[in-house]
Amino acid sequence: MASSLPIILLSSGEPSGIGPDICVMLAMKKIPARLAVLGDPGLLAERASTLKLGLSIQEQKKLSDITPHRAGHLDVLGVSLKTPVRAGQLNSANAEYVIELLKRGAELCKTYKKSALVTAPVQKSVINQAGIKFTGHTEFLADLTGTRTPVMLMVAKNMRVALATTHLPLDEVASAINRQSLKKTINVLNNDLEQRFGLNKPCIAILGLNPHAGEAGVIGNEEQKIIEPLIEELSGTGLNIQGPLPADTAFTPARLAEFDVILAMYHDQGLPAIKALSFGNLVNVTLGLPIIRTSVDHGTALTLAGTGKAKTESLKQAVQLAIKLLLNSKSV
Amino acid sequence: MASSLPIILLSSGEPSGIGPDICVMLAMKKIPARLAVLGDPGLLAERASTLKLGLSIQEQKKLSDITPHRAGHLDVLGVSLKTPVRAGQLNSANAEYVIELLKRGAELCKTYKKSALVTAPVQKSVINQAGIKFTGHTEFLADLTGTRTPVMLMVAKNMRVALATTHLPLDEVASAINRQSLKKTINVLNNDLEQRFGLNKPCIAILGLNPHAGEAGVIGNEEQKIIEPLIEELSGTGLNIQGPLPADTAFTPARLAEFDVILAMYHDQGLPAIKALSFGNLVNVTLGLPIIRTSVDHGTALTLAGTGKAKTESLKQAVQLAIKLLLNSKSV
Repeated sequence: MASSLPIILLSSGEPSGIGPDICVMLAMKKIPARLAVLGDPGLLAERASTLKLGLSIQEQKKLSDITPHRAGHLDVLGVSLKTPVRAGQLNSANAEYVIELLKRGAELCKTYKKSALVTAPVQKSVINQAGIKFTGHTEFLADLTGTRTPVMLMVAKNMRVALATTHLPLDEVASAINRQSLKKTINVLNNDLEQRFGLNKPCIAILGLNPHAGEAGVIGNEEQKIIEPLIEELSGTGLNIQGPLPADTAFTPARLAEFDVILAMYHDQGLPAIKALSFGNLVNVTLGLPIIRTSVDHGTALTLAGTGKAKTESLKQAVQLAIKLLLNSKSV
Repeated sequence: MASSLPIILLSSGEPSGIGPDICVMLAMKKIPARLAVLGDPGLLAERASTLKLGLSIQEQKKLSDITPHRAGHLDVLGVSLKTPVRAGQLNSANAEYVIELLKRGAELCKTYKKSALVTAPVQKSVINQAGIKFTGHTEFLADLTGTRTPVMLMVAKNMRVALATTHLPLDEVASAINRQSLKKTINVLNNDLEQRFGLNKPCIAILGLNPHAGEAGVIGNEEQKIIEPLIEELSGTGLNIQGPLPADTAFTPARLAEFDVILAMYHDQGLPAIKALSFGNLVNVTLGLPIIRTSVDHGTALTLAGTGKAKTESLKQAVQLAIKLLLNSKSV
């Protein structure tokens, strides 16, 4: 290809939400990559016009056509809407369109090592209404790429939090924590932090499953039965790993400074603290995939679509992180 | 009594930890209350001497003897150690002493409305080693006072978090959430925030049990079966209550500003975020008791005992909050 800049493919997500808005708004800024948005060219042009951005849009057909990004210009890899869109009004007739954006993005990324997929938000409910099973980007992209152990990682400026389980009902969490899957998760985490984040022997803190990490078996025994022996085994293989730590004191500033990542056992043990500390400045990264994928940390914000009030900060950070991961990557 | 100032009884906790240190250190400051420390007078004098504080100690026999606090002077309600103490060295022979401090404090508080108990940290493991069943101050004081529904509340400068369940293994949490106990907890919370914190119709945010508050039943159904109908019922009786809210976004600054308190369903859903935001500036309050009880948010820090490195900030805030609650209280 003519340019050696990495390629960022931006999936514009739910068309009636703020996804198209933040894509065209971001295109007004400088970005050191070849950048293309996956979406309907007419929709993107219309949203740019509503927001009075003065953006020039150029449809491209293939990866090699994508040009180094210039502020005020946007390359688009066109995918056609199934039905016209009104900002703020969900329509399950376009669920297939949303899925097509992700499939096209993931397939293209697989064909070129120096490319990454960055995803704007989708509306899970409307995809499910259309009869397409969809529990989240993470799970969908894992299925699409045949990935058995995807790991959800949230990245803030000064902390990272990964999850051992994601969208499970609380009463299924304890039984989902077993030695085998936890071991796979920790290995994916360690490997991707080394290979993609460029960290040397990343320091991984593992939280306990129970309050106070079980307090020596007084409050639950999964720490003694599963987590402690596994930490011992993995330490023996050279991983820089510690725990199990009580979750309630793991996110204090003094402790955070000690770790490269905290692995929480479940969704609401790990995410409230990192979102409390860094909401709007977080990037969601899926580890373990054959491609690099980052995402915003917010939803479709339907009421803000087309108003100019959406903020591009999280998308900008997701793009910047994707570029950094591509530049760091030792083997992708 | 000669003074109308409220009485603060300070239980000095585990004698080999920093409890005695922070009590004598705090006594060097001005405190607008009649203040007495529950502890061994010799131990307190020795720790004050080790820390070179120049503190004068006066043993008192009963509540009515306690004098308005003066910086540099300390009234002590004497309880004798069972065996001599070395700073930093736990000894289960003194477990009974620790328990006696709490019993004496709670009993005295019951005899006089304008008194409160403030607790320095204890070491649960050493109390249990001595054959005394002890899962925490909250549960111990509830048993001692015949309280069926104690509620643990953490108070920071700009947020409060209460727990619907406390020290349960994670796999017992879902089954412990039922309509009846949750209703009692919410009523205790609402009542104490009104009667003791002086809040008019406090705004109570209830978290969901499951990730994303169950996402309309897609990730668990306790929200639809238990929490939503209960919120509807309690709203109907005039409570200012909302939810169930997803835990991961409830602790962001914009959301926190909307609520007087967040009720988390379990320990590691509620405490990591408030400790991340405010560690060292938190006060633990037990609601639902016939007495007022506040506590520090830290442990016994054995390695810091006798070194002068312990910090009094959390104890100072626990005392200040106890005084405020006593002055606010409409009916205690």
